[in-house]
Amino acid sequence: NGSYIALARQNQAQKTALLVRLLSERRMPQQGWTDEQVRSVLAMFASMDSNNHGSTRPGSGSGSGGGGSGGGVGVGEREGRVWSAMVAERHSFLAHGVGRSGDIVAVQPKAPGSSLIQRLTHFMAADALRVAGASKTLVASAIVLPMATGMSALLVFLTLRTMRPAARFIVWPRIDQKSCLKSICTAGFTPIVVEQCLRGDEIVTDLEAVEAAIGAHGADAILCVFSTTSCFAPRTPDDVVGLAALCKRTGVPHVVNNAYGVQSERIMSSLNAAVEGGRGRIDALVQSTDKNFMVPVGGCVVAGPDKALVAAVSKLYPGRASMSPILDLFITLLSMGADTFRQLLAERKANYEYLRQRLAAWAETRGARLLETPANDISLAVALPDGVAAHATQLGSMLFHRFVSGARVVKGENKEVCGIRFDGYGSHVSKYPCCYLNAAAAIGMRRAEVDVFIDRLDRTWTEFNAVIAKRERGAAAE
Amino acid sequence: NGSYIALARQNQAQKTALLVRLLSERRMPQQGWTDEQVRSVLAMFASMDSNNHGSTRPGSGSGSGGGGSGGGVGVGEREGRVWSAMVAERHSFLAHGVGRSGDIVAVQPKAPGSSLIQRLTHFMAADALRVAGASKTLVASAIVLPMATGMSALLVFLTLRTMRPAARFIVWPRIDQKSCLKSICTAGFTPIVVEQCLRGDEIVTDLEAVEAAIGAHGADAILCVFSTTSCFAPRTPDDVVGLAALCKRTGVPHVVNNAYGVQSERIMSSLNAAVEGGRGRIDALVQSTDKNFMVPVGGCVVAGPDKALVAAVSKLYPGRASMSPILDLFITLLSMGADTFRQLLAERKANYEYLRQRLAAWAETRGARLLETPANDISLAVALPDGVAAHATQLGSMLFHRFVSGARVVKGENKEVCGIRFDGYGSHVSKYPCCYLNAAAAIGMRRAEVDVFIDRLDRTWTEFNAVIAKRERGAAAE
Amino acid sequence: NGSYIALARQNQAQKTALLVRLLSERRMPQQGWTDEQVRSVLAMFASMDSNNHGSTRPGSGSGSGGGGSGGGVGVGEREGRVWSAMVAERHSFLAHGVGRSGDIVAVQPKAPGSSLIQRLTHFMAADALRVAGASKTLVASAIVLPMATGMSALLVFLTLRTMRPAARFIVWPRIDQKSCLKSICTAGFTPIVVEQCLRGDEIVTDLEAVEAAIGAHGADAILCVFSTTSCFAPRTPDDVVGLAALCKRTGVPHVVNNAYGVQSERIMSSLNAAVEGGRGRIDALVQSTDKNFMVPVGGCVVAGPDKALVAAVSKLYPGRASMSPILDLFITLLSMGADTFRQLLAERKANYEYLRQRLAAWAETRGARLLETPANDISLAVALPDGVAAHATQLGSMLFHRFVSGARVVKGENKEVCGIRFDGYGSHVSKYPCCYLNAAAAIGMRRAEVDVFIDRLDRTWTEFNAVIAKRERGAAAE
Amino acid sequence: NGSYIALARQNQAQKTALLVRLLSERRMPQQGWTDEQVRSVLAMFASMDSNNHGSTRPGSGSGSGGGGSGGGVGVGEREGRVWSAMVAERHSFLAHGVGRSGDIVAVQPKAPGSSLIQRLTHFMAADALRVAGASKTLVASAIVLPMATGMSALLVFLTLRTMRPAARFIVWPRIDQKSCLKSICTAGFTPIVVEQCLRGDEIVTDLEAVEAAIGAHGADAILCVFSTTSCFAPRTPDDVVGLAALCKRTGVPHVVNNAYGVQSERIMSSLNAAVEGGRGRIDALVQSTDKNFMVPVGGCVVAGPDKALVAAVSKLYPGRASMSPILDLFITLLSMGADTFRQLLAERKANYEYLRQRLAAWAETRGARLLETPANDISLAVALPDGVAAHATQLGSMLFHRFVSGARVVKGENKEVCGIRFDGYGSHVSKYPCCYLNAAAAIGMRRAEVDVFIDRLDRTWTEFNAVIAKRERGAAAE
Repeated sequence: NGSYIALARQNQAQKTALLVRLLSERRMPQQGWTDEQVRSVLAMFASMDSNNHGSTRPGSGSGSGGGGSGGGVGVGEREGRVWSAMVAERHSFLAHGVGRSGDIVAVQPKAPGSSLIQRLTHFMAADALRVAGASKTLVASAIVLPMATGMSALLVFLTLRTMRPAARFIVWPRIDQKSCLKSICTAGFTPIVVEQCLRGDEIVTDLEAVEAAIGAHGADAILCVFSTTSCFAPRTPDDVVGLAALCKRTGVPHVVNNAYGVQSERIMSSLNAAVEGGRGRIDALVQSTDKNFMVPVGGCVVAGPDKALVAAVSKLYPGRASMSPILDLFITLLSMGADTFRQLLAERKANYEYLRQRLAAWAETRGARLLETPANDISLAVALPDGVAAHATQLGSMLFHRFVSGARVVKGENKEVCGIRFDGYGSHVSKYPCCYLNAAAAIGMRRAEVDVFIDRLDRTWTEFNAVIAKRERGAAAE
Repeated sequence: NGSYIALARQNQAQKTALLVRLLSERRMPQQGWTDEQVRSVLAMFASMDSNNHGSTRPGSGSGSGGGGSGGGVGVGEREGRVWSAMVAERHSFLAHGVGRSGDIVAVQPKAPGSSLIQRLTHFMAADALRVAGASKTLVASAIVLPMATGMSALLVFLTLRTMRPAARFIVWPRIDQKSCLKSICTAGFTPIVVEQCLRGDEIVTDLEAVEAAIGAHGADAILCVFSTTSCFAPRTPDDVVGLAALCKRTGVPHVVNNAYGVQSERIMSSLNAAVEGGRGRIDALVQSTDKNFMVPVGGCVVAGPDKALVAAVSKLYPGRASMSPILDLFITLLSMGADTFRQLLAERKANYEYLRQRLAAWAETRGARLLETPANDISLAVALPDGVAAHATQLGSMLFHRFVSGARVVKGENKEVCGIRFDGYGSHVSKYPCCYLNAAAAIGMRRAEVDVFIDRLDRTWTEFNAVIAKRERGAAAE
Repeated sequence: NGSYIALARQNQAQKTALLVRLLSERRMPQQGWTDEQVRSVLAMFASMDSNNHGSTRPGSGSGSGGGGSGGGVGVGEREGRVWSAMVAERHSFLAHGVGRSGDIVAVQPKAPGSSLIQRLTHFMAADALRVAGASKTLVASAIVLPMATGMSALLVFLTLRTMRPAARFIVWPRIDQKSCLKSICTAGFTPIVVEQCLRGDEIVTDLEAVEAAIGAHGADAILCVFSTTSCFAPRTPDDVVGLAALCKRTGVPHVVNNAYGVQSERIMSSLNAAVEGGRGRIDALVQSTDKNFMVPVGGCVVAGPDKALVAAVSKLYPGRASMSPILDLFITLLSMGADTFRQLLAERKANYEYLRQRLAAWAETRGARLLETPANDISLAVALPDGVAAHATQLGSMLFHRFVSGARVVKGENKEVCGIRFDGYGSHVSKYPCCYLNAAAAIGMRRAEVDVFIDRLDRTWTEFNAVIAKRERGAAAE
Repeated sequence: NGSYIALARQNQAQKTALLVRLLSERRMPQQGWTDEQVRSVLAMFASMDSNNHGSTRPGSGSGSGGGGSGGGVGVGEREGRVWSAMVAERHSFLAHGVGRSGDIVAVQPKAPGSSLIQRLTHFMAADALRVAGASKTLVASAIVLPMATGMSALLVFLTLRTMRPAARFIVWPRIDQKSCLKSICTAGFTPIVVEQCLRGDEIVTDLEAVEAAIGAHGADAILCVFSTTSCFAPRTPDDVVGLAALCKRTGVPHVVNNAYGVQSERIMSSLNAAVEGGRGRIDALVQSTDKNFMVPVGGCVVAGPDKALVAAVSKLYPGRASMSPILDLFITLLSMGADTFRQLLAERKANYEYLRQRLAAWAETRGARLLETPANDISLAVALPDGVAAHATQLGSMLFHRFVSGARVVKGENKEVCGIRFDGYGSHVSKYPCCYLNAAAAIGMRRAEVDVFIDRLDRTWTEFNAVIAKRERGAAAE
């Protein structure tokens, strides 16, 4: 028995060493951890939280990982008791969430284990952004919020308001995606929509129009410029270098919606360039955890060059929050490791190139044309022949029913969103010359998916044309 | 084989019937489901979502529940791919979160299974409130937000702002809890703190002062009155009947922070009374999922008499959100069933009574006194002898180190929170006559915990007095 | 960070203390452990095994908990690599099974964690038998085999053969259950079936016939007497006191098939009595883990008064074995604790009494009669009226289709099993006077199930009589 | 709601289709299933079993997946009730095990879902053997036993005994591995050990000696020849072609211990050749599930050219058994798919070649020599210099402490095993000319492990020589 106990102690020391290393390095491991290692360390964290101090099983109901008499007793209003054993288990017995009245990154005395996971996740998220190409200037620190990008952008706006109480407007280079517009309006600001302009096939930032918009309302009335990097072609990432310089010059904050831009080396480089040498101003980057790090929807990484601003965002959060999106990212970054993350990024880049070539080739044979949008290295767009534009939305629907998800047929329409009129809504400009089909190469896609996609697209295309022809014959016959 | 296949079909039909019944009844089951039934139905939901249409395993990395070629291919920017098999599993392969650009309860075409779980959870949450005593008038509908109460209150305020754009103030009967104050300030409103008054030992709402506050700023400038029900003794639940009537009379919205009030029949009855027969006005109730339904921290039920307002809150949410807190509640309410929930509520009530008696008896023998706060039937307070008040905080710390969590020693102090000065902060009024110790009987507590608590309290008390005596002797000797 | 690390160390020390206590006490805990505690300790055990020494994730396939380079490399033919992450997880990363060439309880150098779990399970199983009433004389030690009772009995027979190489026969008081007969034949022995005799309604051991059987073949030719305790009424537990005395006198080993007898205080008492004061001889007790301890089918506890014999059984096992049934028992005994096990046993006893009363009352009203079998306190039998006997098997089938499982209608038939002719097979004697229906009160049954059972039985009975009546009218009409 | 229900039905139909396809194809899928698909189908199976017919949660204890009133009531002695929710979950709610009194592959009326999984696993295991190269002649059918190879071989011997009651001996070409010898003795047979002979470095079957052994005892007295394929170099797979022909000629059954031979194309080919065109006789092949299919220890595939014999083995099994090893294989083969299994086999072959080259190169530089054993394409052996032989076992121990598992240093010793004297035990012949170090390339090993192994071996070697030198200097000084 003595030797067993010694062995148990030695093995626990090894696992503690694993944790100590993580605490001191504060980075993604180079090589991913095994599931067993992740589970062991999660068990160590859980045992630190007060809901796991009990020495007897809860008696009521069906079992639970929480509660506790014997070792621990709880006479507060929130003791992390979990009724369902299934729920307790899926959270690895972490029940207290994150945050504390008034600061989402504050350590909870009842839940030091949970607090520690959160902190480590912040560090690993910052590291992951750097693995993806961010400079230390661009990402001085990062926090992971258990809310998706829209709500996180809203929280960033509310934070900036405490610093610019007089501001009423947010200058927003147009992108036809509802939740970012909504985050502006829900936060109580008036969006100043700046139309984009065309450059060849590409839709690009109209820097002069942005400058004019700032001038028109006065910098003090502007909460921030809210630019967007990741987007559907033919829109391209906003000119963050130009905007950052403009913001610096005019003293207007600059928030970047980098929702799924982490996976693009090109976008990350331009963000680096925007702040390098104090050349321009970026206050906060907002990016999705699910779209960049392959976790379920629900988290957001807010990062930026100014640690104080990032901290201010975390301090504004009222009360506690779910730990779940943070735990997902924690598990994933530990399991993945920096090497595999780099490899996934490289595969994505290769898949984009492969998708581009195959789509171009396909388009050529079908009277369509791949739009030239080199500045967008995630999303692609194929201009559809004029003849089919009238029926185009049906193509998207047909693809969806053939289990192709994410391919969208875009034909701008006039529409009111959040009380604002948009011409050509959906296409990011008031009048894009053609109707087109979008497809993207996102992280985690496999090369084989490109082949299946092209194959199904082509078969769907044939069917779609047959349907149109039939319908037109019908119309002609009437 | 034929008979096997027939059997498989028959059994699937049974599970589908289970789901159909849930969809048509839209309530918690009377008797909780078995884990096997919950898992089966979760598997059915997961199979509806597009990320589970793939017919082959993802090849990259370490395995994943998401992604997919073969059956499904994804060429969008968000395809619910999950890299970590451990993460995919803990979410039962549900990866798309909830919500859709601009409405957190909108159905996601890619994720009908997830959307359905969300909807059913809304219905079951409304039902659970009614099982706990809410009338159909009080709770016409409910939604579950994947954010804790502070952030949810904030979202309610932002919703009300769209209807009362001129409002600048929130009238707030004082409660010394940071996150609700923070939710007011973060939302961009100025809190008008209305001091409470004393009635015997109890701290109660000063209805006239609230009325005066409304009068002073004008009803149109007031976004809402933000009252609180569940609180630490000797504060008592706000006089929601009086406040509701006042709000109705003055045309001011009324939001109730009912954080952990669902577990109190008394609170639920007074809320019913407040709106019965159109007598008074409550616009929204905000309540914690973890504190009332024994799930991990992270969700909130927003409910109210007006379906349109509840819907407006959901429509204001920008973008998607984590499904995790919703899934926890879904699993828990299904597994628990209404019968067991009722039983847990009854046990809580009995535990409160038991805790009250034991605390009173203990206090008597130790020169302390249980404060008379019958209006608060969750939390209790014991006035500590004057002699020990100077050292009182140490008592709380000693209890915490003896694994008693949630017992707090309160001695008001002057403090600034969110830029506002509070006298006697912590005790809910500027000058409470004594220092006291809090303990509460929350849902899920077991009777045996009361015994352990009283026992440890007594032993700690003895030690604590010895420490004080020693210290005072030391001070005297100097 | 320093304080975090200190906290991590302190918490790990607590968990190690938990394990050390278990190692030194070697018993079920009085109060069951929480799930979190069980998981923590499982994680500690897993980390001791060599398959978890790797510091990187396996690259091939879909992920795995096993394998390992970096920390560990494996160049043997069995390295505990597990391809499926789902499989690795369900075994808590324990992959090496139990046993080592030539001894199922030997410590595996590659898997000390697994070996330790096995050892602790042996100790806890012995303790559980004692909690259920076994004396220390009766159960000097116990091992848990990862095989069900039939195969385990076979292994016991093979062990005895090494000590009695000349033995060819096993004397077996008849019980009509196939797998125990099969275990005799498969082991290569010839069963000497000793008919039971009737005493009132009860079927009891014919002690004289057993003695005669031994005499007829000579004690040296007899491997053992193989008696049975737990059985369906109206058969009663064999007279183990009498058999044990006889075996002692004649020098014949005695193996008891105590398959689900642990749950009966009465059976355990008679087993104690059989060996008390050296009065009689029992060599080994064989009991099911699933039927007594509520785990999935697959394990068996072999116990007895002689540690050397129990050890000999374990040493005979050729090679390694699945750890799964042992792990199930380990988790269950830790989670359940002795207090809850005692409570389950008490509830079973009460349910038996309740079932007896309700069945008796029901029988009276329906022209049936509860057989008087007080010596069997698990199973009951209701004699069916003569009129229905011809159709009796249909009653069992009707009950099964109404989701009543385990109720069996018995009407002995002539049958050959393992080459032996049995008259009245199914009823344990060659000619039982009536046809009857069995029902049992086993551990884990709930009182409410008795009510539902009686209710369905009654409704089924009515239908069944209607069907018979119709059929007989039809027959009469022809 | 209507559309939701329709969707639910449609998705269930898809999953049922998945199952129907599996039932009709009865093979591993070409491409592995996703975890979500595996979970869905497991949920379908579980819902067929009677322990999951209950409509309410079990009330006692801490929760459970089993039990059941409401829908189902159980009045038998074995109702699949599972006390621990954690245990129920890890078995996906399958509680009844496999087998039925007297036949391990019989369908259990209470557990058709479990029975079905078992059957499908048998089919998939047979298919997996064929994917690995077995001909349809060699593997006409297969069963998976929930016991490891030693115990399974024992069961095969007991089966053959029913057909050859007079047989007393098993002819066994020597292999120094305890559990196969033990399986012979425990089954009650006398092993006739046939010494191997040397051919160059290789240890090979002495066919003439086997023939002589049969002749000496008479074919009728021989239960079977028990040959071994997979083994440590320099022993090579037995000459199964020669032995099969001999067995055919003499009418003696032939059982092959193919423990981890499935992963070797070379071994599978020779087994095919042994039975092709009725040339020779193989009655049964016994192979480990963990060593060939990367599941935890505990299962065995028994296969052979004669369906009747395989069925006879299953019919001999007394009673029920754990389903766990079968479930592991079921999950793994479904998740892996034939394509990935093929790829794993190809990688193993490449790793063997790589390990061979690197070991040879290393040996050359260190005065050692890779033994020439081309007939063994799994295991390799490096002859150590004579100087170190005296201390050789320490080398193995040093490697183990440097986290190299599976590398064994072999120096034959005289030893008695199961009552038989062996000279040079451990080296498979009575006198192998040298001491050597073994290393193997097993399925699931990664190329990187080879590099780490060689690196550590070299460093350990240096240390080891230093230790020896020091010790010898010490000895010389005395």
